[in-house]
Amino acid sequence: MSGYQVAVVGATGAVGTKMLEMLAEADFPIAGVKLLASKRSAGKVLLFKDQELVIEETTAESFEGIDIALFSAGGSVSKEFAPEAVKRGAVVIDNTSAFRMDLNVPLVVPQVNELALKEHQGIIANPNCSTIQMMVALEPVRKAYGLSRIIVSTYQAVSGAGVSAINELKEQSQKMLNDEPVEAHILPCGGDKKHFPIAFNALPQIDVFSDAGYTYEEWKMMNETKKIMADETIKVAATCVRIPVVSGHSESIYFEVKDELATVFGIQNELEKAPGVVLQDDPATQLYPTALTSVGKKETFVGRVRKDLDDDLGFHMWVVSDNLLKGAAWNSIEIAESLHRLDLVRVPK
Amino acid sequence: MSGYQVAVVGATGAVGTKMLEMLAEADFPIAGVKLLASKRSAGKVLLFKDQELVIEETTAESFEGIDIALFSAGGSVSKEFAPEAVKRGAVVIDNTSAFRMDLNVPLVVPQVNELALKEHQGIIANPNCSTIQMMVALEPVRKAYGLSRIIVSTYQAVSGAGVSAINELKEQSQKMLNDEPVEAHILPCGGDKKHFPIAFNALPQIDVFSDAGYTYEEWKMMNETKKIMADETIKVAATCVRIPVVSGHSESIYFEVKDELATVFGIQNELEKAPGVVLQDDPATQLYPTALTSVGKKETFVGRVRKDLDDDLGFHMWVVSDNLLKGAAWNSIEIAESLHRLDLVRVPK
Repeated sequence: MSGYQVAVVGATGAVGTKMLEMLAEADFPIAGVKLLASKRSAGKVLLFKDQELVIEETTAESFEGIDIALFSAGGSVSKEFAPEAVKRGAVVIDNTSAFRMDLNVPLVVPQVNELALKEHQGIIANPNCSTIQMMVALEPVRKAYGLSRIIVSTYQAVSGAGVSAINELKEQSQKMLNDEPVEAHILPCGGDKKHFPIAFNALPQIDVFSDAGYTYEEWKMMNETKKIMADETIKVAATCVRIPVVSGHSESIYFEVKDELATVFGIQNELEKAPGVVLQDDPATQLYPTALTSVGKKETFVGRVRKDLDDDLGFHMWVVSDNLLKGAAWNSIEIAESLHRLDLVRVPK
Repeated sequence: MSGYQVAVVGATGAVGTKMLEMLAEADFPIAGVKLLASKRSAGKVLLFKDQELVIEETTAESFEGIDIALFSAGGSVSKEFAPEAVKRGAVVIDNTSAFRMDLNVPLVVPQVNELALKEHQGIIANPNCSTIQMMVALEPVRKAYGLSRIIVSTYQAVSGAGVSAINELKEQSQKMLNDEPVEAHILPCGGDKKHFPIAFNALPQIDVFSDAGYTYEEWKMMNETKKIMADETIKVAATCVRIPVVSGHSESIYFEVKDELATVFGIQNELEKAPGVVLQDDPATQLYPTALTSVGKKETFVGRVRKDLDDDLGFHMWVVSDNLLKGAAWNSIEIAESLHRLDLVRVPK
């Protein structure tokens, strides 16, 4: 059977299981799929289409004969095994933050900077979930009117923090509905010292704190935007907040364009014809995107486009997408589709 | 017994019950309390301190002998009965939006513009919940460094939409945890045509849509800010979002000051000594305010104060307060305390 040998690393995770699901809908030929995970998960069985696949433990040798390796098992796994995969001829599409800001690694949202793939040296990084949907929604604006500034506040779902965070939200929610005391063990983020309840709450911390009082998640949005749009001059400020939603990130975005001829109608028009975007924007009929209506869909949904009333070049909008799909698994598959279309599924010598 | 005769209109509502609770902690003499509500609630009994009070139906005559009338029974009730109360010599503190933008009605957050009370003609308006906490947090900044611009995205609790919205959130949450289908009847707002689930979701609509694609809630924040700070030049843009939280509004606020000498440390210092503010701001120990930790408290909590990395005069912060207390009932009681202290509990001839 002709086609690519594809490996999924971290196959049992929240994103990994979606990768397998999305892989079944991919628009490139697949000869075989290998599922890799930690030793703990080895031996478990997952379905790809109607085929039962046994999960194997990830080792350097796992990547022999693999053409495309989709990584989503945490930064340390990517750092250890992505170079091993590349060494064995596999092109890596990495969903962790391990290589995103590496100068030799393209950071790609196909609707925005597909051609950056031409520079790949074996590893391609999938951007942060909250960055991807913002890029898909803002690129049509940037192309038509220029883009000078972004101020974003996020409303992020717990599935971005993995299966254990989803379970934590559900357990805490049930306990609070029963008026029982709750405990927090995972959120705001696994690696940090303190944990706080997410059920019926909003936590203004995603990932650990870093420089200047911003969290890593906020730095990711700020840095990745500049890299993806290939414009160091775009001003970006982010406040990243976790809310009690299972899947579907929402974002309240203020942005300033460069062209004073930009209008709400013009922006809506650009969004309507943009790839990967669905415009859901009609106040008269209460049409706007929400997390629940975006779940399970591959597009990025945009609504509430409106003029800032003070700044001539300012606008606001509301952007929602399934963080496990376009925010992670589906964007990785789209990168693989682009690599296939551009004939780039090979590691340069 | 010397002291004021106080009436609470809308005593059975989410805010009304909190008003009764807060009234017990008020710093002014109370001779008697009269509870008023719709005919439907008449005859029910509520406790004030240890005293059982029977709810009466609101009529114009209910206000005979009343000194202070606290209204929180919806705009139409305020429009009908507030003038009747004033006619009978009662000073009205109205928690609805009915009179807020009326030029003859002071719109007061005591920590910000207490002296505006001197102009009252019988009715004083309590601002919108999401506006109040933003004013409490930004006034110390404005006083020290000037304030030219605000861009706010809110994370608002359902209790702002009343008891039925709280019940809706709880019922929908339980059904979704059980994997049962849910129905929506109240949110995003009672008076609108369509309703969407709030459980495990985020709804970018609070109150109905109005001009320029903004909702009334957003217009309230934009207009009320200018009135309370008595500065038409302050630029304000709001995006108001309902999230699945019972009580406690959170706000992600970007603001620009006028004084280029402003620093994060300086702003934190001003907030630390400001009335009604509690600074909870230390990334090193993951200290920041959240909805759950603010519930039941009268203060406004501020954290995540940080410099915007692009604009020399720009900063960000995260502001949380109990929307039923400082956002509604407690601010009304504080207005009454101010009226008492300034000897203004009387209707001018």
